[in-house]
Amino acid sequence: MRRKSLDDTHCTVARSLDVIGDWWSLLIVRDALAGIKRFGEFERSLGLAKNILSARLKTLVAEGIFEVRPASDGTAYREYVLTGKGRALFPVIMALSQWGSDFLFEGSEARTRPRDLRDGKPIARIQIRSDDGRPLEAGDIESIVA
Amino acid sequence: MRRKSLDDTHCTVARSLDVIGDWWSLLIVRDALAGIKRFGEFERSLGLAKNILSARLKTLVAEGIFEVRPASDGTAYREYVLTGKGRALFPVIMALSQWGSDFLFEGSEARTRPRDLRDGKPIARIQIRSDDGRPLEAGDIESIVA
Repeated sequence: MRRKSLDDTHCTVARSLDVIGDWWSLLIVRDALAGIKRFGEFERSLGLAKNILSARLKTLVAEGIFEVRPASDGTAYREYVLTGKGRALFPVIMALSQWGSDFLFEGSEARTRPRDLRDGKPIARIQIRSDDGRPLEAGDIESIVA
Repeated sequence: MRRKSLDDTHCTVARSLDVIGDWWSLLIVRDALAGIKRFGEFERSLGLAKNILSARLKTLVAEGIFEVRPASDGTAYREYVLTGKGRALFPVIMALSQWGSDFLFEGSEARTRPRDLRDGKPIARIQIRSDDGRPLEAGDIESIVA
């Protein structure tokens, strides 16, 4: 992938990382994609101090990644629900998951294994493709500013 | 995506973020995928202080994401080259790029636009797919520990 500008103002990757380039933010999104909605559930899943979790969720709401709703069961709880913008982080989470599985675990080591609910099979590998479906590597791409 | 364990020891996403969940690490990988190899080039591209860049590169080498080689042109320079493990972060970088482009820029705002070197066309959208090619959303997946 060749870059024609070194100015990060226009870099889509840099801007994304500026918003979600925080370890905890993406783990909160991961949990939400897995169905977690309530503060106490995030707290237990992440093992994160209340004040830190609260600050992270507030930022994620301010960024439009989560929205706060009254609990769906009519109780006084509030729920943190991913917006469309938040749900669209699904491929980022899955790309991180596949890379981790490939390179950070020993062959037989237990790990999270995403699988298709419909047939229980592992999901396909993420592949970067051209407009007409050819698999692309980084060297096949250039990045222009336009 | 349902999770059946809340223990992050086995979580592929958490382990990846533990290794590359640092804003600068992924920007260094982005630059390397774009062809940058030398310390001074990373420094100029990232606008990062020498000591911080040096520490980040050292960590990335220790993690097996980069390797250090003598300069390809026979000069005394050293080059930082992505390993296979490092190049495999390409889908993570592209997923971040597409999300940023979709949600963090105004419609007409200038931004980096990756395109196919062969025909100059934009690359295809990243799609999470089942083993047999069906597009999947987060709700279509469960994550087991195995």
